[in-house]
Amino acid sequence: MRFFSDNAATVHPMVMDAMMAANGVDTAYDGDAWSRRLDAAFSQLFERDVCALWVSTGTAANCLALAGMARSHQAIICHQEAHIEVDECGAPGFYTGGAKLLLTPGEGAKLTVEAVRQRLSAIRDDVHQMQAAALSITNASEYGLIYTPDEVAALGDLCADRGLKFHMDGARFANAVAASRCAPADVTWRAGVDALSFGFVKNGAMNAEALIFFDTDLADAARYRRKQAGHLQSKGRFLAAQLLAMLSDDLWLDNARAANAAAAILADAAQDRLLHPVEANEIFMSLSAAEAAALRGAGFDFYDWGEGSARLVTSWHHKAADVRPLAAAIAAL
Amino acid sequence: MRFFSDNAATVHPMVMDAMMAANGVDTAYDGDAWSRRLDAAFSQLFERDVCALWVSTGTAANCLALAGMARSHQAIICHQEAHIEVDECGAPGFYTGGAKLLLTPGEGAKLTVEAVRQRLSAIRDDVHQMQAAALSITNASEYGLIYTPDEVAALGDLCADRGLKFHMDGARFANAVAASRCAPADVTWRAGVDALSFGFVKNGAMNAEALIFFDTDLADAARYRRKQAGHLQSKGRFLAAQLLAMLSDDLWLDNARAANAAAAILADAAQDRLLHPVEANEIFMSLSAAEAAALRGAGFDFYDWGEGSARLVTSWHHKAADVRPLAAAIAAL
Amino acid sequence: MRFFSDNAATVHPMVMDAMMAANGVDTAYDGDAWSRRLDAAFSQLFERDVCALWVSTGTAANCLALAGMARSHQAIICHQEAHIEVDECGAPGFYTGGAKLLLTPGEGAKLTVEAVRQRLSAIRDDVHQMQAAALSITNASEYGLIYTPDEVAALGDLCADRGLKFHMDGARFANAVAASRCAPADVTWRAGVDALSFGFVKNGAMNAEALIFFDTDLADAARYRRKQAGHLQSKGRFLAAQLLAMLSDDLWLDNARAANAAAAILADAAQDRLLHPVEANEIFMSLSAAEAAALRGAGFDFYDWGEGSARLVTSWHHKAADVRPLAAAIAAL
Amino acid sequence: MRFFSDNAATVHPMVMDAMMAANGVDTAYDGDAWSRRLDAAFSQLFERDVCALWVSTGTAANCLALAGMARSHQAIICHQEAHIEVDECGAPGFYTGGAKLLLTPGEGAKLTVEAVRQRLSAIRDDVHQMQAAALSITNASEYGLIYTPDEVAALGDLCADRGLKFHMDGARFANAVAASRCAPADVTWRAGVDALSFGFVKNGAMNAEALIFFDTDLADAARYRRKQAGHLQSKGRFLAAQLLAMLSDDLWLDNARAANAAAAILADAAQDRLLHPVEANEIFMSLSAAEAAALRGAGFDFYDWGEGSARLVTSWHHKAADVRPLAAAIAAL
Repeated sequence: MRFFSDNAATVHPMVMDAMMAANGVDTAYDGDAWSRRLDAAFSQLFERDVCALWVSTGTAANCLALAGMARSHQAIICHQEAHIEVDECGAPGFYTGGAKLLLTPGEGAKLTVEAVRQRLSAIRDDVHQMQAAALSITNASEYGLIYTPDEVAALGDLCADRGLKFHMDGARFANAVAASRCAPADVTWRAGVDALSFGFVKNGAMNAEALIFFDTDLADAARYRRKQAGHLQSKGRFLAAQLLAMLSDDLWLDNARAANAAAAILADAAQDRLLHPVEANEIFMSLSAAEAAALRGAGFDFYDWGEGSARLVTSWHHKAADVRPLAAAIAAL
Repeated sequence: MRFFSDNAATVHPMVMDAMMAANGVDTAYDGDAWSRRLDAAFSQLFERDVCALWVSTGTAANCLALAGMARSHQAIICHQEAHIEVDECGAPGFYTGGAKLLLTPGEGAKLTVEAVRQRLSAIRDDVHQMQAAALSITNASEYGLIYTPDEVAALGDLCADRGLKFHMDGARFANAVAASRCAPADVTWRAGVDALSFGFVKNGAMNAEALIFFDTDLADAARYRRKQAGHLQSKGRFLAAQLLAMLSDDLWLDNARAANAAAAILADAAQDRLLHPVEANEIFMSLSAAEAAALRGAGFDFYDWGEGSARLVTSWHHKAADVRPLAAAIAAL
Repeated sequence: MRFFSDNAATVHPMVMDAMMAANGVDTAYDGDAWSRRLDAAFSQLFERDVCALWVSTGTAANCLALAGMARSHQAIICHQEAHIEVDECGAPGFYTGGAKLLLTPGEGAKLTVEAVRQRLSAIRDDVHQMQAAALSITNASEYGLIYTPDEVAALGDLCADRGLKFHMDGARFANAVAASRCAPADVTWRAGVDALSFGFVKNGAMNAEALIFFDTDLADAARYRRKQAGHLQSKGRFLAAQLLAMLSDDLWLDNARAANAAAAILADAAQDRLLHPVEANEIFMSLSAAEAAALRGAGFDFYDWGEGSARLVTSWHHKAADVRPLAAAIAAL
Repeated sequence: MRFFSDNAATVHPMVMDAMMAANGVDTAYDGDAWSRRLDAAFSQLFERDVCALWVSTGTAANCLALAGMARSHQAIICHQEAHIEVDECGAPGFYTGGAKLLLTPGEGAKLTVEAVRQRLSAIRDDVHQMQAAALSITNASEYGLIYTPDEVAALGDLCADRGLKFHMDGARFANAVAASRCAPADVTWRAGVDALSFGFVKNGAMNAEALIFFDTDLADAARYRRKQAGHLQSKGRFLAAQLLAMLSDDLWLDNARAANAAAAILADAAQDRLLHPVEANEIFMSLSAAEAAALRGAGFDFYDWGEGSARLVTSWHHKAADVRPLAAAIAAL
């Protein structure tokens, strides 16, 4: 059984069904009946008017958002292990025509007000240095930690104070919301977030993510840039159908809860080995080479995470019964 | 019945089936079993080693190709009505960091050696003007005309002579090959083409196009740029599965033939009205406002194409029986 | 005697003197005493508060202005023979990260309201085409014609109406003002211009142009971009000193008048040959190869301008006595 | 007396004279007699064929070089306090369309083979991370340290081994050569350097730097990009004249020696306070607020460098007699 990443998991049957159901002739691009329901569906979820654009990857969602927030001569503050810095082949620099990421440290890949403030104060206020125009955080973080609404709001206040736009990379936003049991609104726009990359691919969709603009003034340019970046698919209804299926009857939340629950079972078994608290669906734990080999010998696979440690990610399709054998194997090490 | 565009048509059932069949856990991105078969499958089709990358749109395919051919300070020659100029919101300029399209006229949106030579000779050979680094043609053209292998080869010779890279936008490459009854190799690399945007979305796929590199040296950078542009999907197997299904038993060719055949029926009926020869699956014809209204009243829809003319596009799913009523209606005008 | 271009002319002695006088130790970049006087000096000239930045070339001035007016996914309307299109190696595309120039025809390289309106109306209002964000005109135009205040104001009204920013490339602004005998304000901000590339190099300076922002909100980003583009010189006082010397006692206007007067003498002599009215300091005239050879044999040199015609440009240092022999030679052809 | 920076120093009289002498009519841009002598003059200095382009700033020189070495999806290794990272407002990202600087630590702002190797090995070899394409070092470094020919050659070997292009930011190259008493060739192309930003502005020129290509294949694109970036001045002869004057009779070396000698006098006096060895013309020393105030009270000015320390930079025009009073004042603290 594979615990490499939730982004390789299967597509949920209801998503598949929705895609099948969308297979009639309709208007191209985002003029179809499915795409035109997105704004309303996400507005309901977020309890306010939002603009929702489908895109096929998290990188596209992140960078279309950031391209509207920072210009070529400006900078974006993010964690030094943020996905936009470490795993997107420089996409933010490409999309913005050169804007720089200002890397900031923080426990568990989370940013604090203090850390951001310090990073800001390190910028000389002259034209020789890029001035920060935006802040981007990842929720759940790259180490599977979640931000509470209060933590986000504190950062949101700082952004408002310093004139920064505020972006949230929510590749695992569903897991974060499921874990914090808050309303999606509480941890986003009510806390000052201007745009959210709302991930669905890691949570049961095939290739549809939602880029949500709370600051709807940013949406218009993003629609043009989506086309300019080659992300406006001809048969957009198949992306919209995925998103609508995920929102339907809170499938997104159910899936995230399942993944989180599976992770909790593993975390219980690995209590003494945990490198980070397990708050969502990722487990980082110490594991010797011999131990890793033993687990692999027993049929479980996952990523090594540097020497002597490992990363395991659970997915929406991992049922408790699926992970218990692995939990037992870990406990028995 | 809708004749707006083949890019809004339905997805072929065999493609859908292949996507369903790909819905198991596998390696993410393009490390899966499907994606890894692409190079071989397309190499067989093209009778030589090629590199084949899936992407989700034709714009992405075009611009990832062009970004490897022209740098920021260089130019790309294309037809003045080329899709990359008219319908991609400036994507080539964005992907190249500023390269310019040098617009060239030509009957039926086709370029001739003479026209390209003339455009080249209009460039002053000094640093104040961007020098051409690539040529891009569309086959079938934006007006549904096809290039013969000889015509492509003549342009290929010119490119070789002037040190230009040669790109073919093949959004409707299948229709062109079906129409010209040549081998895919004859109208591409044997004629000097370095990279081909091989379209499938307009021909029965959902959201998978193939970017084919005959000059395989260009492929490595394109893989990085695909990631950087946010086009490396997590579950790439669903794109690869579409392409493999399309190649299987020449489905791509059957579909294109069907669309072309449907267009031929309409063209026959509209003989006196045709603005361009109908060689693939697009019909451009003169049609007064009253005539257009009459057809629409009879249940057929399509784009107006400026005043007094219309564009109709047939798709893989249009059977002869489907289009005959429209043909009759046109003939009866 | 050379009549190739005013941009190869000598530097006026008073400019040289001012540069010598600036050769003391001072603060680097634009923190020196000279640079800090620029805003006030140009504000006085333009009868309102402006921001004035020195840069060393017209291309830099044009593109720093345009980069603040159009984003990567937007377009800039200009004449099809505008310097930014024809002679800057794609600088606008580079500076904006891909914005496109929408080429528009017009007699004598001038744009009319009607022509701009027509170009605007040719843009489809959807995300597949770049929407116009700015208009750029050249005054005096590339063919040496000037815009009257009324002509500029008509374009300014159109810009206001359509939400376009308005840029003027004034590489030969001095010649235009001298010719039209209007106040600099009348043909710029009072007519709706947001930013002006105010050229001095062609008019007696060495390597200092002024980028003038009437819409001062655009200036802040331009200061950062000037640095980012490598245009913030360490010893900026030598650029500022040139500009201040040019403004002093209306040297800029005297120089432009001298160049215009010299051109008028030539124009008189070439009356029957003129391809464009001579309103500033450029003469475009029909001239056979034999005639051109004759003039060159007599010691006058200039550019051929396509077959059978020639361009002659007069400069600030051409005195009436200098050009009379050429006028006589032309008249005698 | 000011010790802020050598980039605010005066222009050497022989440079001024050369500029005066260049004030005749000549061909525009770089077609003039002075510019055309540059390749030969620098080829002689470097004992091999080189291409030499004038530009007006070090940022332009650095980034025109880097833009030819790394593409949008690639990375450039440099010191974490390199000028290109800290003081150029993100110019490398702008010029390359998004390439990233990979920051590397090192004593005194110098890079070692070991540090570069470590930084390289931290890059995952997959498309999710930008791969390094170039290395850039600064000589003399941002803390005034110099690289020996052997140190450069060791880095050059590493570059050759890993397929990296090698750039040297020589804003204070003259001071470095003067200090190391090596041939310019020894510390550049003989040690594997492909391109050098050869600074003159900090060493007595007004606004001319030389971009030297040892890998002359890179020069052609750089010439186009210089124009595209707005750095091709109309009256280029005034830049070329500065460079030729600086090369004449080794003025560049004499000036650098003078600055270094002045720094040595101060370093002697500040021996116990030095934060870095003084090898060229910069002194970094500990200095309390009270001590700084005392020196300023005595008429000497300089930059604070964080709390409790200061940076002093000597220039070509500082004679021994000029700096002795300051040396005495420091010694007396």
